[in-house]
Amino acid sequence: MTSAIAYALHQASGRFEKTTIERRELGPNDVRIAIAFAGICHSDIHTAREEWGTVRYPLVPGHEIAGVVEAIGDAVTTHAVGDRVGVGCMVNSCRECENCLAGEEQYCAKGNIGTYNAVDLDGTVTMGGYSTSVVVNEHFVLSIPEGIALDVAAPLLCAGITMYSPLMRWGTGPGKKVAILGLGGLGHMGVKLAAAMGAEVTILSRTAAKEADATALGAHHFVVTEPSQLRSLRSTYDLIVNTVSASVNAETYLSLLRFNGVLANVGVSPEPLSTRFSPLAQNNRVLAASGIGGIRETQEMINFCAAHGVGSMIETIAASQIDEAYDRVVASDVRYRFVIDASTF
Amino acid sequence: MTSAIAYALHQASGRFEKTTIERRELGPNDVRIAIAFAGICHSDIHTAREEWGTVRYPLVPGHEIAGVVEAIGDAVTTHAVGDRVGVGCMVNSCRECENCLAGEEQYCAKGNIGTYNAVDLDGTVTMGGYSTSVVVNEHFVLSIPEGIALDVAAPLLCAGITMYSPLMRWGTGPGKKVAILGLGGLGHMGVKLAAAMGAEVTILSRTAAKEADATALGAHHFVVTEPSQLRSLRSTYDLIVNTVSASVNAETYLSLLRFNGVLANVGVSPEPLSTRFSPLAQNNRVLAASGIGGIRETQEMINFCAAHGVGSMIETIAASQIDEAYDRVVASDVRYRFVIDASTF
Repeated sequence: MTSAIAYALHQASGRFEKTTIERRELGPNDVRIAIAFAGICHSDIHTAREEWGTVRYPLVPGHEIAGVVEAIGDAVTTHAVGDRVGVGCMVNSCRECENCLAGEEQYCAKGNIGTYNAVDLDGTVTMGGYSTSVVVNEHFVLSIPEGIALDVAAPLLCAGITMYSPLMRWGTGPGKKVAILGLGGLGHMGVKLAAAMGAEVTILSRTAAKEADATALGAHHFVVTEPSQLRSLRSTYDLIVNTVSASVNAETYLSLLRFNGVLANVGVSPEPLSTRFSPLAQNNRVLAASGIGGIRETQEMINFCAAHGVGSMIETIAASQIDEAYDRVVASDVRYRFVIDASTF
Repeated sequence: MTSAIAYALHQASGRFEKTTIERRELGPNDVRIAIAFAGICHSDIHTAREEWGTVRYPLVPGHEIAGVVEAIGDAVTTHAVGDRVGVGCMVNSCRECENCLAGEEQYCAKGNIGTYNAVDLDGTVTMGGYSTSVVVNEHFVLSIPEGIALDVAAPLLCAGITMYSPLMRWGTGPGKKVAILGLGGLGHMGVKLAAAMGAEVTILSRTAAKEADATALGAHHFVVTEPSQLRSLRSTYDLIVNTVSASVNAETYLSLLRFNGVLANVGVSPEPLSTRFSPLAQNNRVLAASGIGGIRETQEMINFCAAHGVGSMIETIAASQIDEAYDRVVASDVRYRFVIDASTF
């Protein structure tokens, strides 16, 4: 076992406290990573506050992890000490089911093992990246090329892949009109990725407050989601990626899709997605949803980002600022991702 | 003008009456067709009984038309007198919008002109195939190859293309598991087409009553849609085409889809299609819907059917039996399509 410093919550209404946790002995296929940065994802907050169900406290969140390999097990072949690496939302899966064998471990038939608050195959509860180190099976450790800094790479491991996967799946590229609904942690990655893929990118936002940001991030158009604005955009987009975690009227955004257009949802709506037959059938529209991506696709995404100079726009904080950062994320007061500097632990 | 015999309804609660209607003079690009057979589609009944909105009576339904060309306009190049032809759900469109130019006239930006109960570009109200002849712009007239009889070809023009389009779009073929939900006019075409495309086909039906039919039509499996049966089929199908026009629980059928699986709706549900985020996101599932297909794809479908010996399973009736046939369609008492023999007019 190896001790690590971590920041943990002991109850839903508590504050983060510095603590010491034990990381497991290196198994033959394990990699121990010295964590440099961990992003704060809105999921961390939903989980920490038990908005998504019961939590196994103490909770150490964090599934946007970037760091350097400090030790490897005897059988590890894919990573070496000193390598720049990352860990995303999962640290294990059954590795045997159809989806795992296809490289889509996120949809493991037995459920993937989340990076925190999950029971791992050995019965222990996983603890995430708000820590100085973590031990992970090499299969779930991503390589981070030299072309991208570790701090701006960290949020790619969740926010990046969550956007990359639907953008790639639905054919984002030159000649395609792609809209990103909501400019937050996910949305800002969506703009950067879709623009780097060569699409004509529009941000759809509730207010005009982030228009300058959208342009700086690479968006070609910015539209405030008022009925009068949206009416003129019927049958316009090939793809809309909805990053909003509040309820949205699916029909409103379906109507903006041209022939074979797709409304891909990655924001977790608290209410069901609902549409009458006709707004969906018109133009052969599609309603889709997805969560993160498989390990292979995540590596592909990181390589794409390194090649195209795409990183997250971040605000780096010290460990002592996590509670404050949580409140600011909930208030949408972050542009666009908080990253905890593990050297402040 | 040319007179034609037709069977018309004069009010929603009325019965069909034999009448004489006028078909327009042949324009340079028009084709006059001597109708041999007209299928009865459930849409005819919904329209006739004003379940889908106000009707311009007298109403002559029928958008599954097969016959022989009896006259052509001066500029017609695509059809000749004596050709075996068909007409489906639309007889005109703007021909200028993005969708029309792409061959997807069914989604014409100005609305396609339906084969009956629609106001045509010349201001007249269209009258459909329950008649001895019809005049249609050559672009909307399909060729019916010798390899397929006109009576079993007629229902292809609506039911056939409605199923063919989503089956093709979502990759039906060898190695794919395709389920058809509901074995009626649409469903029976779905089985025949999916089997001819090489897929492994399952019929999902409320009761076991049609199991023998399903097998005869080419289905490889038959499942009664009871919870215990469906539970064992989670993450099984690549594609489910829902032909049911009653409300179905979308989540129930989404759960049966494997990675990247699609629930394609062609039955017009009276209630919205609704799903929570998770059952859609799991396995990257897709909720889609569509209506008929474009003219180019409809011709492709007819050619496919002729090449593979696929026709509708029909019960041929005389014009005097239309009212009775309507009641039987509503009672699901038809296997699987009524076709009116125009020689009985």
